Amino acid sequence: MKASVKLKENLKLTAELKSGHDILMDASESAGGDDSAARPMEMLLAGLGGCTGIDVILILKKMKAEIADFSIDIDAERAEKHPKKFEKIHLKYKIKGKNLNDKKVEKAIHLSENKYCSASASLKAEITSSYEIEQTN
Amino acid sequence: MKASVKLKENLKLTAELKSGHDILMDASESAGGDDSAARPMEMLLAGLGGCTGIDVILILKKMKAEIADFSIDIDAERAEKHPKKFEKIHLKYKIKGKNLNDKKVEKAIHLSENKYCSASASLKAEITSSYEIEQTN
Repeated sequence: MKASVKLKENLKLTAELKSGHDILMDASESAGGDDSAARPMEMLLAGLGGCTGIDVILILKKMKAEIADFSIDIDAERAEKHPKKFEKIHLKYKIKGKNLNDKKVEKAIHLSENKYCSASASLKAEITSSYEIEQTN
Repeated sequence: MKASVKLKENLKLTAELKSGHDILMDASESAGGDDSAARPMEMLLAGLGGCTGIDVILILKKMKAEIADFSIDIDAERAEKHPKKFEKIHLKYKIKGKNLNDKKVEKAIHLSENKYCSASASLKAEITSSYEIEQTN
């Protein structure tokens, strides 16, 4: 899997990705950047949430759940000292829809976090999770 | 550090980030998505390249180098079996500018990869690097 990151100006970078979709990144003004795009460390959290989110949605759909609303709140703790890596990440899944129950949601989250999600498997942080279901008719 | 990932439609997700910049992600058509935005696993590579890229540029600037062009080619190997995590990642830094030499570039890359880059410290993969310098007058 290949990608390129290229400097545009000052500290603004474009990531050219295999899918053909580019992503912009920038540093904060306090770090010397222009705050014109998201921070690199935010990309890691976005990728983690996107990866497990797509897994859980696909698994729940296979279980005949109908999803009306889906989100994940991500809360990451970083080390205080450089290189300030992610140490603990909590994922709170919020799912609204029909034909949902604890068993299905727990199984979907478990399968993503332990079997399918490449992003959680690629990160060193201890990843924990919780969930909320809102059942609709 | 907080973030939220929200379902927009089908498998398309928006990551709402602390910096205020949102990022879109989508699955490939073969995975049931619409290929309208980058893949979650691409976010991890973008974040890694962006993180070490900003480090190296800032360190070289402190060393009085003038950077005319800067890019990183990222080549990642993933495990064949689920969860297909990143196992090895090679970063090839390509730097063009004035007042550059091997010593400065090696030191800047070393400081990023071993001291400052939060993204490389957060990933499990074995990360290696190489570089090319093009000196300009």
